[in-house]
Amino acid sequence: MYTKLWLDYITDDNGTVVSFNDNLKDSPIVQNAVNELKSCAFLKNLNIVLDLINDGSLNDEGYRISTSVMGYKIEANTENGLIFGSFRFIALYRLNDGEDINVTEIPANKLRMLNHWDNMDGSIERGYSGDSFFFKDNDLIINERTRDYARILCSLGYNGVVINNVNVKGAACDLINDRFIDKVRDLSILFSSFGVKLYLSLNYAAPIDDPDVASADPLDDKVIRWWEKKFDEVYASVPKLGGFLVKADSEGRPGPFTYGRNQAEGANMLARAILRHGGIIIWRCFVYNCQQDWRDLKTDRARSAYDYFHDLDGSFEDNVVLQIKNGPMDFQIREPVTPLFGKMPNTNQMIEFQIAQEYTGQQRHVCYLIPWFKEVLEFETYATDKKGKGSRVRDVVSGETYGYRYSGMCAVTNTGNDDNWTGHDLAAANLYGFGRLSFDPSLGSEEIALEWIRLTFGNDGKVVNNILKILMMSWPAYEKYSAPLGIGWMVSPNQHYGPDPDGYEYSRWGTYHKATCKTIGLERNSEGTGYATLYNEPNASMYEKPETTPDELELFFHKLPYDYKLKSGKTVIQHIYDTHFEGAEDAEEMARLWDELQGLIDNDSFKRVFARFEHQVAHSKEWRDVINSYFYRKTLIEDEKGRPLY
Amino acid sequence: MYTKLWLDYITDDNGTVVSFNDNLKDSPIVQNAVNELKSCAFLKNLNIVLDLINDGSLNDEGYRISTSVMGYKIEANTENGLIFGSFRFIALYRLNDGEDINVTEIPANKLRMLNHWDNMDGSIERGYSGDSFFFKDNDLIINERTRDYARILCSLGYNGVVINNVNVKGAACDLINDRFIDKVRDLSILFSSFGVKLYLSLNYAAPIDDPDVASADPLDDKVIRWWEKKFDEVYASVPKLGGFLVKADSEGRPGPFTYGRNQAEGANMLARAILRHGGIIIWRCFVYNCQQDWRDLKTDRARSAYDYFHDLDGSFEDNVVLQIKNGPMDFQIREPVTPLFGKMPNTNQMIEFQIAQEYTGQQRHVCYLIPWFKEVLEFETYATDKKGKGSRVRDVVSGETYGYRYSGMCAVTNTGNDDNWTGHDLAAANLYGFGRLSFDPSLGSEEIALEWIRLTFGNDGKVVNNILKILMMSWPAYEKYSAPLGIGWMVSPNQHYGPDPDGYEYSRWGTYHKATCKTIGLERNSEGTGYATLYNEPNASMYEKPETTPDELELFFHKLPYDYKLKSGKTVIQHIYDTHFEGAEDAEEMARLWDELQGLIDNDSFKRVFARFEHQVAHSKEWRDVINSYFYRKTLIEDEKGRPLY
Repeated sequence: MYTKLWLDYITDDNGTVVSFNDNLKDSPIVQNAVNELKSCAFLKNLNIVLDLINDGSLNDEGYRISTSVMGYKIEANTENGLIFGSFRFIALYRLNDGEDINVTEIPANKLRMLNHWDNMDGSIERGYSGDSFFFKDNDLIINERTRDYARILCSLGYNGVVINNVNVKGAACDLINDRFIDKVRDLSILFSSFGVKLYLSLNYAAPIDDPDVASADPLDDKVIRWWEKKFDEVYASVPKLGGFLVKADSEGRPGPFTYGRNQAEGANMLARAILRHGGIIIWRCFVYNCQQDWRDLKTDRARSAYDYFHDLDGSFEDNVVLQIKNGPMDFQIREPVTPLFGKMPNTNQMIEFQIAQEYTGQQRHVCYLIPWFKEVLEFETYATDKKGKGSRVRDVVSGETYGYRYSGMCAVTNTGNDDNWTGHDLAAANLYGFGRLSFDPSLGSEEIALEWIRLTFGNDGKVVNNILKILMMSWPAYEKYSAPLGIGWMVSPNQHYGPDPDGYEYSRWGTYHKATCKTIGLERNSEGTGYATLYNEPNASMYEKPETTPDELELFFHKLPYDYKLKSGKTVIQHIYDTHFEGAEDAEEMARLWDELQGLIDNDSFKRVFARFEHQVAHSKEWRDVINSYFYRKTLIEDEKGRPLY
Repeated sequence: MYTKLWLDYITDDNGTVVSFNDNLKDSPIVQNAVNELKSCAFLKNLNIVLDLINDGSLNDEGYRISTSVMGYKIEANTENGLIFGSFRFIALYRLNDGEDINVTEIPANKLRMLNHWDNMDGSIERGYSGDSFFFKDNDLIINERTRDYARILCSLGYNGVVINNVNVKGAACDLINDRFIDKVRDLSILFSSFGVKLYLSLNYAAPIDDPDVASADPLDDKVIRWWEKKFDEVYASVPKLGGFLVKADSEGRPGPFTYGRNQAEGANMLARAILRHGGIIIWRCFVYNCQQDWRDLKTDRARSAYDYFHDLDGSFEDNVVLQIKNGPMDFQIREPVTPLFGKMPNTNQMIEFQIAQEYTGQQRHVCYLIPWFKEVLEFETYATDKKGKGSRVRDVVSGETYGYRYSGMCAVTNTGNDDNWTGHDLAAANLYGFGRLSFDPSLGSEEIALEWIRLTFGNDGKVVNNILKILMMSWPAYEKYSAPLGIGWMVSPNQHYGPDPDGYEYSRWGTYHKATCKTIGLERNSEGTGYATLYNEPNASMYEKPETTPDELELFFHKLPYDYKLKSGKTVIQHIYDTHFEGAEDAEEMARLWDELQGLIDNDSFKRVFARFEHQVAHSKEWRDVINSYFYRKTLIEDEKGRPLY
């Protein structure tokens, strides 16, 4: 039986009385909120009022929780606000041990989403926690677990979920056809009753298969009418559908480029067709040439999203949102921020992260990613033409900077049908943390971690302390023992797990480090590929020179000799050796901290994580030795401390 | 419909009269010979006599073909000799354009076998020509194609075939059980009627699954009795079965080591159990530690077969044959000869080659392997304690050197259910060539190639000339553009296709080149791993020093600096650059030679090979550039001729 994660508190009758406005008695959303409040074992014999009010300051999804002698009150402008507030109330009540609660919380981002890369055969692309719980044998699953998943999302304030892989093939094409549309509607109704909108990934080439159309040219009337009719049909069955996510012209997927059209022409065609139904089109910017010749020294994949999209600013419809990966490459352990943020005042943007640990240990290594996401979100873009106050990435994607109509944050999810949902028990901290962060990006990484630990494992001091240490050590540790200084990609091709320093060096993917016996790195300043110049000033100048580029990104931006001195005072080569020895030691330390918890937490959970740490400790040594030996053999420069290199 | 390869000559009635001894009229073998002679379109209105004689000089499988005014006579001591002679007569008649034929041919090797790595689900391990024609959906197939395959084998004098993969799992375990035994018998009868014995690969661990035995310890009485009973059952159903091939203690397969027994104890247990049925046990020597730590600088996989088997000489039963790969590693484009040959006077040996082009272009590149096999077979072992005359590898495996009871040659086959049997039409030259070579190792590579070309494509001068050139260029070309100087293994892991210079460098397979910015290679002389000392003198001394080691094996035996001067006068690095540029040019030249044949040969065949050459030309450039760039980046030594390095 699967766990309930931090919602593991169900009881038959907790004696709590929940009252609410008469006109809400038929609301399935409010009913779910009431059920939750009355079945939480922690809320014994409380009085709780759910009050639908009209308070402009709270907007659509915010809530106010207050405490008085009469009990607790949760106020909101909408039913969604009430249910988000109810789940939050449960968490706060547990975290505050029943103390008075008086908070007003309003989500910073309009869109707070998870993307599932689930395939309809039940497999998950880049899934590391079992198979899909949405799909099996080319059919949709709706059961108790689906409902629990909706509860999980609602408990964190997520308000959108894309259930199928962006690579839409086979049976998944029928999610918008008669074959599956009734089940999609049922799923949509279920999620809506927890404040979450359902979205689908869409096959841009769908009309090609209709013999009367046989095209996907976005300027072709027949194509336009095909989509209008299709969206009419879909929304007739699934009126609550949020809209569609589209991966076009990317990694073999069809798109407007096939017809000599640009990305805006492609997105706008769909956006206009869906407009009358209130749907949105989320258009991924992960467009690049994945057939690059590795001998080609001029093309720079890092520029791709910028080069394809930047000049289209202002030409997208209002109900299009560009979904842009946090970095210019692909979810590496360290990348700079994608330069499109803060440079498109007139185009809705949302940021895409990945909590599926594709390149960060695949949920066999612990890697708490929230500190990394925080660094990205706090990055100052120095946006020009500002309309609002801030111009950090988080301000841009919250809509503050430019007043976007739609914007926000999404993550490729790390969930699957494993009993613990996320493969590694500690990976649930990313599922939790990303939800909290997209609701409130001002939260700190430690603050979020503490919440999750206490809601999941309880309040024992050693438990809280040790798991917090593990989580906060984990991302830096993984960075230390894997590819150094922002160079990325030293992983085994295809599977993306384990070290392979030259794994992508002679391939078509545009991800090269070009290490020789003297230097490593691709020069990306104005004399190189020009990538550094794509940023607003003073970022562009900062990245122009090695002396001003932050150490952790030196090899992303610059081609440097191994004896180049970093700001840390160490040479590049000594930095590599030192961090790799440290990282493997950190893995041992994290395992040791976990070992201390035996008997203090649920034993099944203890054993699952224990087994994963056994692997991580060994595998981090493999990373250490392969990366160090790779550079040692390239240079024959000895480690200053004389540690073993092979 | 599949092709008939060089047997594409069937006609309804060629008017030929075949007479034979009265007592042979019920012989299915003779019936097949007669059918063949009467249905070959080339043999119009001939008179042919098949004559079973008693002539000690011809032994069991030889034949004499003679011509007189009365017609042709094929004489042999056995029915098998008559059918081998009949097929050979057809080939000679075509090659000699009907001229008089007077030859006596006696196979040099007692065992002339093909090993199929076919799985019962229809897949083929290392198969590059479609799926299995023996198995599909966990069942055996016996149909017209099976019969044609038997004809093909017989036409080359093959006398044994192992139909299932040496990794015996799942349904394949039931080939010796009731589930499949009747079909195995039928197949055995079919092959026997073409002079070919059927063999099976065996799961050494089979008795473990019998709860009354639950062991595979070769000294355990219960295990011994289990196999005796099993072989009794099998031979009761399949009396013509040749015996079994065993891969034990290798790459995860179980074996005697599990029980602390040596390889002889394992093999002998089976050999004694099968002896009363006249069966033999073919025991593979591909035993090595496939969990090696790449940091371990002392273990040398090349020594494994020698270290595990050499000291057991004389302790194997008479009906055990050791099947030893040609080289100490695994079918690389260039390896030295396994040092076991010529060092085990008292143990039956056969040599294992691979015509499945696992490491030699996977039947997408043309690679005529016979010249390579010839080099191996002609290698002088300087065997001591000789009983016969010669001591070349071919003398050892023919039994000449030591008078082995069973010995010979086998190859992992390159066949599958593709229409042309071998994926690449030109790969059929290896299937043909290996058969001819195992029958008569004194044949020359060109001689064999010419036979095959003329029997397959006819006698047009340009056709014969160009294809001969292509075949003879192909193995040297592949060696030139792939891993240099005997170093091997610079291929993509698992799939073994395409360049990946460090692909096996940090893995568990024991196949390392340890290239640094100064040197490359593992030292295998007496001061290194000692591998070179395993040979008889003067080979051991020859391989001891770089100065006396042949250029093409320098990096197999020695760790050398890139500026080491080869006997060719070139440095190692310049040799690498030069050969790689040459190899890719050779691929272009071969493609050009093929292009000239359009219209001169069957157009389907032309187009198939044309398409493969398109790939080979491009892929050989990829090999060239990746290998050259790898070494260029390691050393930053420029090409003397200034050609592009990346």
